[in-house]
Amino acid sequence: MGKKYVYDFSEGSRDMKGLLGGKGANLAEMANLGIPVPEGFTITTEACIEYGNDGNRFPDGLDDQVNEYLAALEDKTGKKLGDPDNPLLVSVRSGAKFSMPGMMDTVLNLGLNDESVNGLASQTGDERFAYDAYRRFIQMFGKVVMEVEGQLFEDAITVQREKAGVQFDNELSPAGLKELVAAFKQILEKETGRSFPSDPREQLDLAIAAVFRSWGGARAVTYRRHYNISDDLGTAVNVVSMVFGNMGEDSGTGVAFTRNPSTGVKEIFGDYLTNAQGEDVVAGIRKTKKLADMQQELPKVFKDLTGVMQKLEQHYREMEDIEFTFEKGKLYMLQTRDGKRTAAAAVKIAVDMFSEGIISKEEAVARVDAGQLDQLLHPMLDPTRKYDIIATGLNASPGAAVGKVVFDADTAAAQGKAGEAVILVRWETSPDDIHGLIQAQGVLTSHGGMTSHAAVVARGMGKPAVCGADQIVISEEERQFTIDEHVVDEGDIITIDGTTGNVILGAVELVPPQINENFQAIVAWADEIRTMGVRTNADTPEDAEKAREFGAEGIGLCRTEHMFMATERLPIVREMIMASSAQDRAASLEKLLPMQQGDFEGIFEAMDGLPVTIRLLDPPLHEFLPDYTELMVEIEHLKCTGGSQAEIDEKEKVAARVRSLKEMNPMLGTRGCRLGIQWPEIYEMQVRAIMQAAVAVDKRSGQAPKVEIMIPLVGFAEELRRMRELTVNVCDEVLAGAASSLEYRLGTMIELPRAAVTAGEISDYADFFSFGTNDLTQTTLGFSRDDAEGKFLTYYLEEGLVKSNPFETIDVDGVGKLVEIAVKASREKKPDIKLGVCGEHGGEPASVKFCHRAGLNYVSCSPYRVPLARLAAAQAVLEEKEIAFTTA
Amino acid sequence: MGKKYVYDFSEGSRDMKGLLGGKGANLAEMANLGIPVPEGFTITTEACIEYGNDGNRFPDGLDDQVNEYLAALEDKTGKKLGDPDNPLLVSVRSGAKFSMPGMMDTVLNLGLNDESVNGLASQTGDERFAYDAYRRFIQMFGKVVMEVEGQLFEDAITVQREKAGVQFDNELSPAGLKELVAAFKQILEKETGRSFPSDPREQLDLAIAAVFRSWGGARAVTYRRHYNISDDLGTAVNVVSMVFGNMGEDSGTGVAFTRNPSTGVKEIFGDYLTNAQGEDVVAGIRKTKKLADMQQELPKVFKDLTGVMQKLEQHYREMEDIEFTFEKGKLYMLQTRDGKRTAAAAVKIAVDMFSEGIISKEEAVARVDAGQLDQLLHPMLDPTRKYDIIATGLNASPGAAVGKVVFDADTAAAQGKAGEAVILVRWETSPDDIHGLIQAQGVLTSHGGMTSHAAVVARGMGKPAVCGADQIVISEEERQFTIDEHVVDEGDIITIDGTTGNVILGAVELVPPQINENFQAIVAWADEIRTMGVRTNADTPEDAEKAREFGAEGIGLCRTEHMFMATERLPIVREMIMASSAQDRAASLEKLLPMQQGDFEGIFEAMDGLPVTIRLLDPPLHEFLPDYTELMVEIEHLKCTGGSQAEIDEKEKVAARVRSLKEMNPMLGTRGCRLGIQWPEIYEMQVRAIMQAAVAVDKRSGQAPKVEIMIPLVGFAEELRRMRELTVNVCDEVLAGAASSLEYRLGTMIELPRAAVTAGEISDYADFFSFGTNDLTQTTLGFSRDDAEGKFLTYYLEEGLVKSNPFETIDVDGVGKLVEIAVKASREKKPDIKLGVCGEHGGEPASVKFCHRAGLNYVSCSPYRVPLARLAAAQAVLEEKEIAFTTA
Repeated sequence: MGKKYVYDFSEGSRDMKGLLGGKGANLAEMANLGIPVPEGFTITTEACIEYGNDGNRFPDGLDDQVNEYLAALEDKTGKKLGDPDNPLLVSVRSGAKFSMPGMMDTVLNLGLNDESVNGLASQTGDERFAYDAYRRFIQMFGKVVMEVEGQLFEDAITVQREKAGVQFDNELSPAGLKELVAAFKQILEKETGRSFPSDPREQLDLAIAAVFRSWGGARAVTYRRHYNISDDLGTAVNVVSMVFGNMGEDSGTGVAFTRNPSTGVKEIFGDYLTNAQGEDVVAGIRKTKKLADMQQELPKVFKDLTGVMQKLEQHYREMEDIEFTFEKGKLYMLQTRDGKRTAAAAVKIAVDMFSEGIISKEEAVARVDAGQLDQLLHPMLDPTRKYDIIATGLNASPGAAVGKVVFDADTAAAQGKAGEAVILVRWETSPDDIHGLIQAQGVLTSHGGMTSHAAVVARGMGKPAVCGADQIVISEEERQFTIDEHVVDEGDIITIDGTTGNVILGAVELVPPQINENFQAIVAWADEIRTMGVRTNADTPEDAEKAREFGAEGIGLCRTEHMFMATERLPIVREMIMASSAQDRAASLEKLLPMQQGDFEGIFEAMDGLPVTIRLLDPPLHEFLPDYTELMVEIEHLKCTGGSQAEIDEKEKVAARVRSLKEMNPMLGTRGCRLGIQWPEIYEMQVRAIMQAAVAVDKRSGQAPKVEIMIPLVGFAEELRRMRELTVNVCDEVLAGAASSLEYRLGTMIELPRAAVTAGEISDYADFFSFGTNDLTQTTLGFSRDDAEGKFLTYYLEEGLVKSNPFETIDVDGVGKLVEIAVKASREKKPDIKLGVCGEHGGEPASVKFCHRAGLNYVSCSPYRVPLARLAAAQAVLEEKEIAFTTA
Repeated sequence: MGKKYVYDFSEGSRDMKGLLGGKGANLAEMANLGIPVPEGFTITTEACIEYGNDGNRFPDGLDDQVNEYLAALEDKTGKKLGDPDNPLLVSVRSGAKFSMPGMMDTVLNLGLNDESVNGLASQTGDERFAYDAYRRFIQMFGKVVMEVEGQLFEDAITVQREKAGVQFDNELSPAGLKELVAAFKQILEKETGRSFPSDPREQLDLAIAAVFRSWGGARAVTYRRHYNISDDLGTAVNVVSMVFGNMGEDSGTGVAFTRNPSTGVKEIFGDYLTNAQGEDVVAGIRKTKKLADMQQELPKVFKDLTGVMQKLEQHYREMEDIEFTFEKGKLYMLQTRDGKRTAAAAVKIAVDMFSEGIISKEEAVARVDAGQLDQLLHPMLDPTRKYDIIATGLNASPGAAVGKVVFDADTAAAQGKAGEAVILVRWETSPDDIHGLIQAQGVLTSHGGMTSHAAVVARGMGKPAVCGADQIVISEEERQFTIDEHVVDEGDIITIDGTTGNVILGAVELVPPQINENFQAIVAWADEIRTMGVRTNADTPEDAEKAREFGAEGIGLCRTEHMFMATERLPIVREMIMASSAQDRAASLEKLLPMQQGDFEGIFEAMDGLPVTIRLLDPPLHEFLPDYTELMVEIEHLKCTGGSQAEIDEKEKVAARVRSLKEMNPMLGTRGCRLGIQWPEIYEMQVRAIMQAAVAVDKRSGQAPKVEIMIPLVGFAEELRRMRELTVNVCDEVLAGAASSLEYRLGTMIELPRAAVTAGEISDYADFFSFGTNDLTQTTLGFSRDDAEGKFLTYYLEEGLVKSNPFETIDVDGVGKLVEIAVKASREKKPDIKLGVCGEHGGEPASVKFCHRAGLNYVSCSPYRVPLARLAAAQAVLEEKEIAFTTA
């Protein structure tokens, strides 16, 4: 016997998601739980993979197995595929291991042809219904399987409607629908050169192949890139006997969540439509009804449904996201899966389920996606202020966003990539818009509900969304939308508030979010579990205070170059750089000293005795100087237009100095400790400012600052030895002068591959190391971030050459390997050396988990990412204990 | 008993160079061989190190031990230091482990004061001699120990000479010399505030301390940097009883080599002066006599000397470099050491000594400094052509050099660092000129012999030198020199030929050197010993042929970008880059294809079946485009001066494309395989050109080229997987079309740290790896070569932060570590993978030896370096067998 490619629902279970896909595995699970699902079977993901690997050919044996399970299905239902009297109709749906809503293809009503349509008419006693199903099938089959442009069918419908003099599709008569069926078949033949396949078994094979192929389609690939899903998984195909929600007012279809996926509140949450089929609810074409209203309209179905929902939640110990259809009052479940949710909902559900005794504290911590937590910490509108609201829609995904209005996904993608903040404004979004949604700050639709495509996708991405704001009239052609008297053109700035559903003209200043008690509970539980410290990267007292509110246990990176960049200081900094002697340079540094000291006093006070790691000046000096090309163009302009010679001379003097400091590759040039070694007076000034500030704060507050001085870009132990000597000399002098016995530590960044492989020697002169994984990524991969992102790195991501952006998620195999080498070498030589990370990776969940596994003592990240890092650090511990994070 | 700091000559041996310095160890060795040396003792290098470490304080016990050994010396000589009747006079000389000629200080005639000078007068019966010795001592002591400006003494002598109405120093009367002694003491007191120390024991302590300090002097430090000598060794101090070469015509002093150090010929080679002392010979103040002439003038001394020389060579089994003095006909050896020699001499001596049965073949191979071999391979003047020779001096160091005339070392150093080729022209050089000599292409002196400072140093450095060209009249003040009617100003270009001693006005085209049979013998012996292959880096058939002459066993790196840069091709390359579609780009590539194919055919033919590794296009595209700033200035100029709008538009179009390709850090940008992945048509064209060329050459010559295609800048295995697929597709197509079964291999550069640490995975898709250690050094160290050399790296070298330039000698601890990691990982996965190096390190001896130790299969270097690499690869094997290279 060959490989098994087909499983009946009775043969599957929820543990078989890899083989049967999420949908198939859960249909099997529900069937086995006694929950009503239509009869059907699942073709495995392996069949899909083999189909692709073998040049789009069905694997041997698949055909026979489909025949076998189809025969069994016909037996169970008592119907036969293509039967002219009692035809079996099936849906053919994709279903991958990880949910990819709307990304792949579905065909409904399969099995209809010119004979079986009559059987359907007699089965249902409704000829109009039967022909409507037939034309829908041909339309969907044509579009999905035979790849005919969908608009051609829509145009044919319009022609038919006009001919019949009616306004809506459902007013078309059976005769009109028959004509439409004929017209559709003609379109199909004209466009593809092949006639519509009337053999239902051939229909089935073609549909299965189309679903297999949709795994490699552009939309699906884009989605997988964004969600980091492997290309190797393949999709399963579910063949399920049709049930009809469009057989009258006691039939219908709907989607629901077992709790509110936006807020997490335990309540009835969903939408339904009576006399509707399939995608009608999420497509947003008809106005949906709230599920709460079903209790009155269809009490029996409502009771059955809520019973099933309760059963599912108890069984899965999770909030479930379901699809259902009821046919003449009988309920069928078409799908269940763990529901996607906002971060706020995730937090509330985790805390509530712990309170309800459903899950443990560790599971609660494991349940919240640390990456998603970020959205809770994004800025929002100030709830205490009044705004001039021009429209209100559904609060589909919380948080606020400000950006330029754009009307199509391509523009959103292009401008977003170019660094513009844009808001995508659409009537409704579809899976075709995914690339624009990824790049937009938020989305505003004039149509669609809480479960519409835009709403679901935005919540998953943690982006603000306002949906169904139906006061808005969009004219894509004129690139504008209007609300009453307001006209908003493409490029105008608006603010959307996904928390309230409000739309505001212009940019509004956003305020940090409130952090509620559920949030506090989760991160507090995380703190009990995690073993790594979490610090923050902060250059100002304001950032330092914010980070402390978020639970930062110290500053892991305080950059000093931003202090040099301040408008009132830049002239002095330039004066210092232009100085022709050490003496002149010293004079400029003298002026900077009290300013720097003030900066540090503020930060020490804000951190109130917690450790503060201050990095001495790092960037190349020419970053403080004017642009060379601009200077040369200005000089040429002055020369050609008879400008004053004095001005020309002055500019040429500056140009000469800029030229002498200009570098081919500034990233690999005179920066970091190479500055401090060649011009020690700069570092001496900084160290003096740091220690004088520490002494002053200590005397003033009695709370001794924990000073950690960090030398950047060390590659050779000898560099650090000399910089340590310089630092110790200055510190000792300041402390002796102030009769202070303040302690301080000295360490270095590990941000060059050479530093990583010689970390043992370097550790001789260091009390701590902080891995600068941003620069370490640049040098290890040979990727200049400025030149990679938006250029070849973007290409690499799109083409799947790299799985994720190494500047966001640490490159474990390359950069991670060097970190591990350095950890091993330095701990062997100096077991008590303190090791941390201060690149942006310190605030990205997968990277934080790597840091834990690598044995680092702490991570440091931007203030808003601190809670995320606390959570991720705890989840790293739980993963070691194999309490894995179960994602929605 | 404390540590032993002082050794009598009888207590030492030549194996104690680390402790006693080279000079002290060899004095001891000679004494123990029964060769006449003056009595004396040596203070250890440890004493010097402890003196420095303890803030310039003598270590405990040193004083007592000096007293003890001094007393013994007084006993042995029957004289007493400072004795008014029979005074002992001593010399105090430095002597480090490695010879540093002239770099540290010496004091002669120590022990004289107002009393003992009379004892010396009565001992010698020559008052004039005694007072001349006294004034020389004060002068030297003042300059060296008390650090008084030497010119002050010279001025006083001039005054005295004028007063006496004489022309030369030696015409001064005893009374005149007494006045000079008084004048010198006054100078000393005035300049230092201290009186001349009349206590000889105090004189001795001060002189020892001065020698200790001279270890850390600027000249010595510069010298050590250049020769890679550790700062931690310290110098020994030799205290030796004076013998006098200036006691009449039967006294004298000289220097000699046991063979000719310039040619290697076994002959009498040296200079001497009668009635002269100490440094007079090498200082070049008086015209020296050829040693051969001594046979007639002083047959007994000559016989003794040649006897000693023979004994020394037999004992040391090496060419020796000796200093001697004879006092009233009695010979004393003052020093012996292995003699520095030219590369030509080293080769001849090694081959001769093997023929003479003195050393083994392996020792002969070990004896030739591979680094020095380079000078034999440098261009020289065409010996068959006639040149307009303006002057002829001694052929002091072979090879020819062309450069601008400069008259002082500072200028030579400055211009040399700035990349100018300069010839340092001096009356004579001194150790103060060392920094200028390092940077100059060659040196020309109007004075001094074959053993003068300029000659010795230039030979050691392998730089051409013409010395003692006494037709040349130098006026430093007017910055020019004259020869008869010729006036040569500073900045004028001259050519010097150190092989013949000729000086030529203007630049002369140089030709490659002849390689003689001794040279061929040594590298042929090396080939028998070495296990690593040696290939060459060659981009043209001419280079390929030259490299084969030098013994290259294949091409390890054939760069293709130079082919793109050729004048007639650049417009097509620009056309390709400016192309807005893949189609337009293809059209330009179509034009380049036959040109590239022609290039490769030439190279394959030149290599005649040896392997040829061709690297596909590597540099960033904008390297082929105009400079952005220049373009913008041109546009501004056109705008301001009413230039044609069409021209402005055209330039702005180019500027826009340049801007879009411009990168912050091109080294880390879109280059290497990142080009091939984004624009596969470029690599496809190159692969097609390579394979078509290989097929054509195979059919034409019957000699199948060994094609190796190399992908640059791979960081991810997936990059190589895709590029392998592309390459294989094109190759298969070409081979199928030509019905050829040519074999080819595919590999990659390992030049990114990520590639090194993931080499195991990358090896899945590679038949070979070539370590691109140039770029690997840039990324591992974070050193942009363009921005490091002449800037911070130069500073690092000067300040001793790095011991050698990592772009010349491989950074074993950093870059080397990554190479080792990659070798291990790739060999574990693919034991038969071929591994090589193609950075410039492949032609540098220490790096070649590292490559051998790391287990690489071959190195590849520029054609002229191939023999050097062959030799170094053999020496690496000998070092493993502990047949160490014994350097001069």
